[in-house]
Amino acid sequence: MNAYEIRRNRLYDWMAGESVAMLMLEDAEGRRDPAVRWLTGQPGDSLLFLSVDRRCALVPWDAHLARLYADAEHLIPYTDFERHPIKAARSIAEFFKIPAGSKVEIPSGTAYPMFLKYVEGLGDYDVLCRDGGADEEIVSMRAVKDEEEIRILREAAVITNELTGLLETEFASGALKTETDVALFIEAAARSRGCEGTGFETIAAGPSRSFGIHAVPAFTADPFGGNGLSILDFGLKFHGYTTDVTITVARGPLSRTQTRMLSLVEKAYDLALSMIVPDVPTREISLAVDALFAKAKRTMPHALGHGIGLEAHEAPALRSRADNEWKLSPGMVFTLEPGLYDPVHGGCRLENDVLMSAKGPEILTRARILRL
Amino acid sequence: MNAYEIRRNRLYDWMAGESVAMLMLEDAEGRRDPAVRWLTGQPGDSLLFLSVDRRCALVPWDAHLARLYADAEHLIPYTDFERHPIKAARSIAEFFKIPAGSKVEIPSGTAYPMFLKYVEGLGDYDVLCRDGGADEEIVSMRAVKDEEEIRILREAAVITNELTGLLETEFASGALKTETDVALFIEAAARSRGCEGTGFETIAAGPSRSFGIHAVPAFTADPFGGNGLSILDFGLKFHGYTTDVTITVARGPLSRTQTRMLSLVEKAYDLALSMIVPDVPTREISLAVDALFAKAKRTMPHALGHGIGLEAHEAPALRSRADNEWKLSPGMVFTLEPGLYDPVHGGCRLENDVLMSAKGPEILTRARILRL
Repeated sequence: MNAYEIRRNRLYDWMAGESVAMLMLEDAEGRRDPAVRWLTGQPGDSLLFLSVDRRCALVPWDAHLARLYADAEHLIPYTDFERHPIKAARSIAEFFKIPAGSKVEIPSGTAYPMFLKYVEGLGDYDVLCRDGGADEEIVSMRAVKDEEEIRILREAAVITNELTGLLETEFASGALKTETDVALFIEAAARSRGCEGTGFETIAAGPSRSFGIHAVPAFTADPFGGNGLSILDFGLKFHGYTTDVTITVARGPLSRTQTRMLSLVEKAYDLALSMIVPDVPTREISLAVDALFAKAKRTMPHALGHGIGLEAHEAPALRSRADNEWKLSPGMVFTLEPGLYDPVHGGCRLENDVLMSAKGPEILTRARILRL
Repeated sequence: MNAYEIRRNRLYDWMAGESVAMLMLEDAEGRRDPAVRWLTGQPGDSLLFLSVDRRCALVPWDAHLARLYADAEHLIPYTDFERHPIKAARSIAEFFKIPAGSKVEIPSGTAYPMFLKYVEGLGDYDVLCRDGGADEEIVSMRAVKDEEEIRILREAAVITNELTGLLETEFASGALKTETDVALFIEAAARSRGCEGTGFETIAAGPSRSFGIHAVPAFTADPFGGNGLSILDFGLKFHGYTTDVTITVARGPLSRTQTRMLSLVEKAYDLALSMIVPDVPTREISLAVDALFAKAKRTMPHALGHGIGLEAHEAPALRSRADNEWKLSPGMVFTLEPGLYDPVHGGCRLENDVLMSAKGPEILTRARILRL
């Protein structure tokens, strides 16, 4: 049994327990769902249908691509259904011989007006669109990586670390002068090492733009790495899985505020790391970091971290919002990324990827605050 | 009055006509809505609230960025609401003194389970989440570009054409050898000419990968532009607005099938162009192209085109699906992009950006099938 079949089997078991006769997933522009790739290997736009009698049908936008990549019993081009998701759902339900009155679950992200159309179009079925359903179950499954995924993420981290080393040398020598130089250096180096590319648009923000959490635009022809604080946030995508690290380049002379921000961020990072033990609620760690910053009269305007995998941002969340109930289980891979931003002095962030093992945290990447 | 105020005023008028007391828009990861940038200039993640008494409040994730870019009466950091959209909506409704019982419209893309939470959280109001409401109205407004937008898109097209010329020279000389070479050449050239970057991930697919509509990964270390068909699909983002063109590089000797595919795609392009007159339903054009391909026993697996602007894909749609009711009005800017794909012979697509003027189509870009 390959990894996709194992994952689907876990989902079929869950469906049986929930009496869900058919499950529909959708990966489309504006409604990305990497669960389709996780369950079949198909990297692009598709619908995926699973029936409780353990069969699956992939309805790809690009059938050629699916024939190369996808692991699924049935491949049916989306054009067969005039590229209409409700038509596809109705036809596949017939094809799977789903009995009338059965529960058919559709994506929990389905917009309310679209949900009403599904209910109408699938009149014979009990249409479920819910929190706490299949999507949340898959998100929980995906939050804990299996052996194959950990192997891929480790390899991605090795390449990321190689690049981090190269970048540090370049920054020290001043060879990469502009934000664009830095970003394109990463793009080319990633691909020449067998990566699919970057996991998200590289953010290279020189001293004049590092005050932004995620600088807009992500990189420009402006200088990078000059006097003051520069932020470089990048990830490498390898077999679909992405790393996510942030290096801050601090070139002196620095202001007292800048020096203090750097050391606060490092303190926050060390504090967070020291709290990582199996089963710790991630909210506790985030609140501790918030408190550390609050004592220094600073606020971090974003979350402390997030899971990584097929998405650059996935479960578990590491944030202080009251509704965050995630705990760290062995197999989870996530970022720690405390950061502070000042409209005058610029910003700094330190971000690494951490694997939760039964023994404790294993830091996979080697980003740091680089003082030059 | 600046362009943002003019646009908001049109929307306030619409709200009055619909008796919508407060309107909420959301631009967030996974739920991108460029309407926020269109109405305020704010390029990044934010909530936007408009009240029928003609005031607006922007709730940005990154308040520093908003202070630089955003045009809005009120700027309130998202952290003030613990980064919770429903808390923000409730607080802003109070701040705007929206009377109980009034209509409050939320994004039509709100997921059904989330919609239920809005209804609960905004208990005093009549919560609207609908097709045919504010989002569709804004999409229609945005589909017809104003003078400022046309000026920007024209400038973006001029830079795109300059790059197209440079690329043709490079392809002829064989200087850009790999897909990555091509993609990074565009990234650097775009930014050095004042573009924010590319409008979407450049797709550079050499002969072995051009069979895919949108090759995955988008570009690799594989050769580009060798014998056979290579596809290059790219756009430049300039002041937020993106172009979108596709060049096919056909290097001989070509098979009979390849030659035939190229001429069919050119015929389809010319046919589509000849049908562009004010008020023509775009479905008619798409059906004509489908029929042309069907006669040659070929199928185009994607739509004929789409609007461009703040998004690479926006209204109007140019496709043959029965629910497509778009007509071409003066001021619309859209792509024409017929394409054919064969698992053995590779793919070809020809895509240019067209401005619908009162007189007829004006082709802004200069992509073509390049036979080498």
